[in-house]
Amino acid sequence: MKVSREKWENNFSEWFDRVLSEGEFYDYGRYPVKGMGVWTPYGFRLRKNIIEIIRNLLDGTGHEEVLFPLLIPEDLLRKESEHIRGFEGEVFWVTMGGHEQLDVKLALRPTSEVAITYFESLWYKSYRQLPKKLYQIVSVFRYETKATRPMIRLREVTTFKEAHTLHETYEDAERQVWEAVEIYKKFFDILGIPYIISRRPEWDKFAGAVFTIAFDTVMPDSRVLQIGTVHHLGTHFTKAFDYKIQKKDGTLDYPHQTSYGVSDRVVAASIAVNGDDHGPVLNPYIAPIKVVVIPIPAKTEEGTEKVFEYAREIMKVLNDTGIKAVIDEDRDKTPGEKFYVWELKGVPIRAEVGPRELKEGAVFLKRRDTFEGRSVKKENLVSEVNSLMREIYENLKKRAWEFLNSKIKRANTLDEAKKLLEAKAGVVEVPWCGRDECGLKLEDELQARVLGSPVGEVKVEGKCVVCGNEAKSLLRVAKTY
Amino acid sequence: MKVSREKWENNFSEWFDRVLSEGEFYDYGRYPVKGMGVWTPYGFRLRKNIIEIIRNLLDGTGHEEVLFPLLIPEDLLRKESEHIRGFEGEVFWVTMGGHEQLDVKLALRPTSEVAITYFESLWYKSYRQLPKKLYQIVSVFRYETKATRPMIRLREVTTFKEAHTLHETYEDAERQVWEAVEIYKKFFDILGIPYIISRRPEWDKFAGAVFTIAFDTVMPDSRVLQIGTVHHLGTHFTKAFDYKIQKKDGTLDYPHQTSYGVSDRVVAASIAVNGDDHGPVLNPYIAPIKVVVIPIPAKTEEGTEKVFEYAREIMKVLNDTGIKAVIDEDRDKTPGEKFYVWELKGVPIRAEVGPRELKEGAVFLKRRDTFEGRSVKKENLVSEVNSLMREIYENLKKRAWEFLNSKIKRANTLDEAKKLLEAKAGVVEVPWCGRDECGLKLEDELQARVLGSPVGEVKVEGKCVVCGNEAKSLLRVAKTY
Repeated sequence: MKVSREKWENNFSEWFDRVLSEGEFYDYGRYPVKGMGVWTPYGFRLRKNIIEIIRNLLDGTGHEEVLFPLLIPEDLLRKESEHIRGFEGEVFWVTMGGHEQLDVKLALRPTSEVAITYFESLWYKSYRQLPKKLYQIVSVFRYETKATRPMIRLREVTTFKEAHTLHETYEDAERQVWEAVEIYKKFFDILGIPYIISRRPEWDKFAGAVFTIAFDTVMPDSRVLQIGTVHHLGTHFTKAFDYKIQKKDGTLDYPHQTSYGVSDRVVAASIAVNGDDHGPVLNPYIAPIKVVVIPIPAKTEEGTEKVFEYAREIMKVLNDTGIKAVIDEDRDKTPGEKFYVWELKGVPIRAEVGPRELKEGAVFLKRRDTFEGRSVKKENLVSEVNSLMREIYENLKKRAWEFLNSKIKRANTLDEAKKLLEAKAGVVEVPWCGRDECGLKLEDELQARVLGSPVGEVKVEGKCVVCGNEAKSLLRVAKTY
Repeated sequence: MKVSREKWENNFSEWFDRVLSEGEFYDYGRYPVKGMGVWTPYGFRLRKNIIEIIRNLLDGTGHEEVLFPLLIPEDLLRKESEHIRGFEGEVFWVTMGGHEQLDVKLALRPTSEVAITYFESLWYKSYRQLPKKLYQIVSVFRYETKATRPMIRLREVTTFKEAHTLHETYEDAERQVWEAVEIYKKFFDILGIPYIISRRPEWDKFAGAVFTIAFDTVMPDSRVLQIGTVHHLGTHFTKAFDYKIQKKDGTLDYPHQTSYGVSDRVVAASIAVNGDDHGPVLNPYIAPIKVVVIPIPAKTEEGTEKVFEYAREIMKVLNDTGIKAVIDEDRDKTPGEKFYVWELKGVPIRAEVGPRELKEGAVFLKRRDTFEGRSVKKENLVSEVNSLMREIYENLKKRAWEFLNSKIKRANTLDEAKKLLEAKAGVVEVPWCGRDECGLKLEDELQARVLGSPVGEVKVEGKCVVCGNEAKSLLRVAKTY
């Protein structure tokens, strides 16, 4: 069966909103505060499984989880001048407590560099205590003036995993940047989300960073979604706090920092990257429910009773081995109506159990990704489900990467680039002389965003598409979220 | 060895502050916003272990975890009039976004009844969907005007576990109240925190509740700490939202609600209830580190090397079986200095490993609660540690309950009650006629707080200590946090 992905690709925005609401992942757009949604139970469990993966990766690489205050006083937020310039326009301010006006305005944290640097300066005084890697998973707030979107552009970002590290030297911090990049690669690989990695251009790096490395993915509508960033902060913040440590050579100097984050957007991408017109197909390793058991009624009441009993038995076999399965026992719905619901939730495997399966001691397993079915004996159920989960995972990952790769195009002139972007190419790479002014002009001409240059050695031939000088690098440009 | 608890009991406030800071649980009092602290890595892990316990208890009883927005618009918060009256004076208000004044002020949630009722009214329309039990673990905010205290009285309560349930009838909701009480009993029993359960008096129930059942414990200084509350909300909130559901009998009517919460105070109590002058003694089941291995140097450099190697081996044996152990390899500190540090952190078992242990293939295990030691063979290490953890847990629980029970006294006159409270009795129970005015007068006369009446049947003889009429119940009164 060829699965249609027409709506998924050509009408993604509608597809996504419908999946989130009808699939019961996330309630959005009904709360009387713009840009704030609710994680309903099913979506919450998906989010939790995803958080658990990044938590394990961070804990396994010497990161320590912490929790800093949500409110940041104005003077603290103003410590680093580039930083506040970058965030000032989009900070929510608390100005009142009870009926009193506060002496100092308090920001809802847009990110936590300043609060964390403040405490680091109290805690870590010597190179002996370094490197130090902290992280927290918290809500951050941005007073977005652009159109908000569920999970993608929010005023309350509820799943901000921010890591903050402290190092003796610039080089140590740079090594940490690449360690973070490796951690995120693993994270997205486990999730099956394909990505490209770019060094953001000077004019689009994090407010307060020396440089920013970013992970982007391409959404079904060909628009690019930033899903993770890693910043080398140098001594920008430690200098602002006049915070020095004792170095190995006995001198006192400013320590170097990095920070890196991922957000709700990772959940959005997990739902979006593998979809079809029936809904999403969740990666079995993060799916809250691996198998939904659908009993197919028999011709007689008594036969149906037996089928339901057998179906419950099947569910129990799976749950007993830790494979999360549920059964849909609703007697008022036809199997077809149930299929529809569970497909919208992206449950990777459907186990159909009818009179024939009962008679044969079998289960009919249907894959959500290809809709291929196979009948398996009950005694082989667990191993069959396990291998099916692996197959689905591999297939999803392969398909998602193929989609991403098909969305990266090369253009050698501005005109070519423009046409490609208009034709929803996804990411367009162009030769570039390396000068910021050409990059900015490119954004202007194409009405698109520069993602930056590929990380690592890139062989470039040709001329800068803007100025015609010898190209030194490539610039990636795209319509973005 | 008799362990001194003199400072713990007579100078608790100082003891607690010192433990939190030197034990590296929590950084408090240094952040430029009052009433907001930082969960540093060690404390964070203790908090996480505690959260995991309540999460399992709730998930196991049909509760579903969710996440609602942090900001509540003023008009929504004002929906239920008693509720807003109770919180109005202590709400933080967001009034600005970027440089703009907001049209509607946004409250940092003090609790989430209104936000949740709002969504329940969109999601649940029929008795068939009930009961519904949701919970979230989030930060809530109170603009406290009283003196703040780390983990105990905060402006940002970072660990608010709030459950919210919805039911067809008053009786269903009342049954839920008692289910919640049972869940909390289990929770505190696992944690080894002793408690008394009281029905809060009318004048001190939750703002918007029909009645409130509260869990209290007695801190080392004899002051009472509320550690959990369960509220029957009746139809107060559903009426305010004019939210009706279809009932079983076909009519439309307001559903009934409950809510119940615990907070950072549970972590505070976990640290406080079992302490001595060396620091806290953590319940082994929630301790982030179960065993600290301390190598005792030999007389020669070479001998010391071998001891350290053996100590690392001991740590590995434990970690390999899932018993979290660390080793303190600091060469600049004496064993005695190390003992001091790890006692302050409350690690339940110390494994001393010196030349003798190396020679004998043994480990000297020392209990943190009694400081009793025993030498065990390496091959028995894991089972010995496991049984020691059980013993320590049982001993801590017993000791904590004995302490609590010794802090509950009976008085038959106002004068007796006053003297007992002055002598730091803890909780004083007095006969009471059952009228609010006598309860309020009691608070006034004793300059103390009424906790309420014991839950369940109570046999009372005697006269109300205030009015002298026949007593119908007991009132518990105490100096509280």
